[in-house]
Amino acid sequence: MRMAELSAESGVPVATVKYYLREGLLPPGERTSPNQARYSAAHVQRLRLIKALTEVGGLPLASVGAVLGAIDGDETPHETMGVVQQELAGTPPKVSDEAAEWATALLRDFAGRHGWKWHPAENKTTGNLIAALATAKELGHEELADRLDEYFALAMRVAELDVEVVTGLTSFDKIIEAGLVATVLGDRIFTGLRHLAQEFVSREVLGRAPSR
Amino acid sequence: MRMAELSAESGVPVATVKYYLREGLLPPGERTSPNQARYSAAHVQRLRLIKALTEVGGLPLASVGAVLGAIDGDETPHETMGVVQQELAGTPPKVSDEAAEWATALLRDFAGRHGWKWHPAENKTTGNLIAALATAKELGHEELADRLDEYFALAMRVAELDVEVVTGLTSFDKIIEAGLVATVLGDRIFTGLRHLAQEFVSREVLGRAPSR
Repeated sequence: MRMAELSAESGVPVATVKYYLREGLLPPGERTSPNQARYSAAHVQRLRLIKALTEVGGLPLASVGAVLGAIDGDETPHETMGVVQQELAGTPPKVSDEAAEWATALLRDFAGRHGWKWHPAENKTTGNLIAALATAKELGHEELADRLDEYFALAMRVAELDVEVVTGLTSFDKIIEAGLVATVLGDRIFTGLRHLAQEFVSREVLGRAPSR
Repeated sequence: MRMAELSAESGVPVATVKYYLREGLLPPGERTSPNQARYSAAHVQRLRLIKALTEVGGLPLASVGAVLGAIDGDETPHETMGVVQQELAGTPPKVSDEAAEWATALLRDFAGRHGWKWHPAENKTTGNLIAALATAKELGHEELADRLDEYFALAMRVAELDVEVVTGLTSFDKIIEAGLVATVLGDRIFTGLRHLAQEFVSREVLGRAPSR
C-alpha cells in the first residue's frame, strides 16, 4: 500500500508516519520509485503498536524506541516484558529520606520472605513501589502497607492469568507482542476493572452519609 | 508553625505553598500580624495530600481542587472515591469507531451479566476501559478481552481488600482520606506488585530463548 493508505489504515497522520520513518521507529517501505514506497500490513501493525504505547501507555518516543528495539531483538518474551515494565515505570516521585528508608526496609523484608533477589537500584518497578509506600507513610496511612502480603497474593493471581493469556498464543512473534499488550493495556484494563469493582463493593459499605 | 517550618515539614517549597494558598487549595493560616500567619499540622497534612495527588497520581491542579473539594464536602466515602476515580481517569485515547463499538458491546454485555447499571457516557472509568479494549482489538490482541470475567473476579477481590483496609480505620475523616490514598497510591502499588509478580511468573514460562 501507499503512504496515504498506510495513514488511513493505522489512523496515524502522514506527517507523523514520516516522522517515525525518519526517527527509525518504523522500518522503511519497499522503494517503487525515487519518491514512492510500498508499505505492508506489518507497517500498519507497527504504527498501531506505537500508537498504543504513546496514547495508552503514555510513553515518550525515546521509550517507544527502547521497547520496539527489545521486540525486534533476540530477547525472550520474559526479557521483553522487563524492558516494557522499566519504560512504563517512568520517574518515581521524590520522598523524604526517612520515609524512603522505612519503605525500603519493608520491601527488603518482603522480598526476603518471598525468596526474591533484591536489586532495587537497577529496578524502576521497585523504585516506584518504594516511593508509593513511602508517600503512604508520610501521609500517615500505613494501612495499605500492612496488607502488602495480601495484595501481593492477588497480584500473583493476576500475573499468572497474564502469563496464561500470553502463552495461549501459538506464534512466537504474537507472544512477544501479546506480552507488550498485556503490560501496557493490561495495567489500564485491570485498574479500570478495579475502579468499577470498588464502586460496586463500596456502595454498600461506604455509601452511608457522613456522621462527623 | 510559621511558613518556613510548614515548608520544611511538608517538603513543599515556600513559593509553591504561597501559590496553593492563592489558589484556595490550602486554607489560610491564622493571622498573627499583618504579614505573618500561623499554620497547623492540618496544613502539613493537606500539603502532603496535594503532593501525593500531583506527584504520584499525576493529577493537574484543577483535578486536585476537585478532589479536595469532595474531601471537604458532605459526600460519603463512596462518593469521594468516585470523584477521585473520575479525576484520575484523565482523557481516554482515541480509537476507531469500529473498535469502539466492538468494545462497547463487549462491556455492555459484561455489565448486564454482572447486574450493573450501564451509564458509559458520564463515567470516565468505563470510557477508559472501552478505549483500552478497543486498542487491544485494533492490535489483533483480543486475548485479554476474552478473559475479562476472570480479570474482573480478581479485581473484585482487590476491591474487597481495598474497602476492608479503608473501613478498618476508626475516624470518619481518616476513612475519607484513606479512600483517596487507596485509590491514588493503591493503583500505583498494585501495578508495581503485578509487575514484580509478572517477572516472577514469566521467568520460568517465558524465559526461553526465541526459536523464530
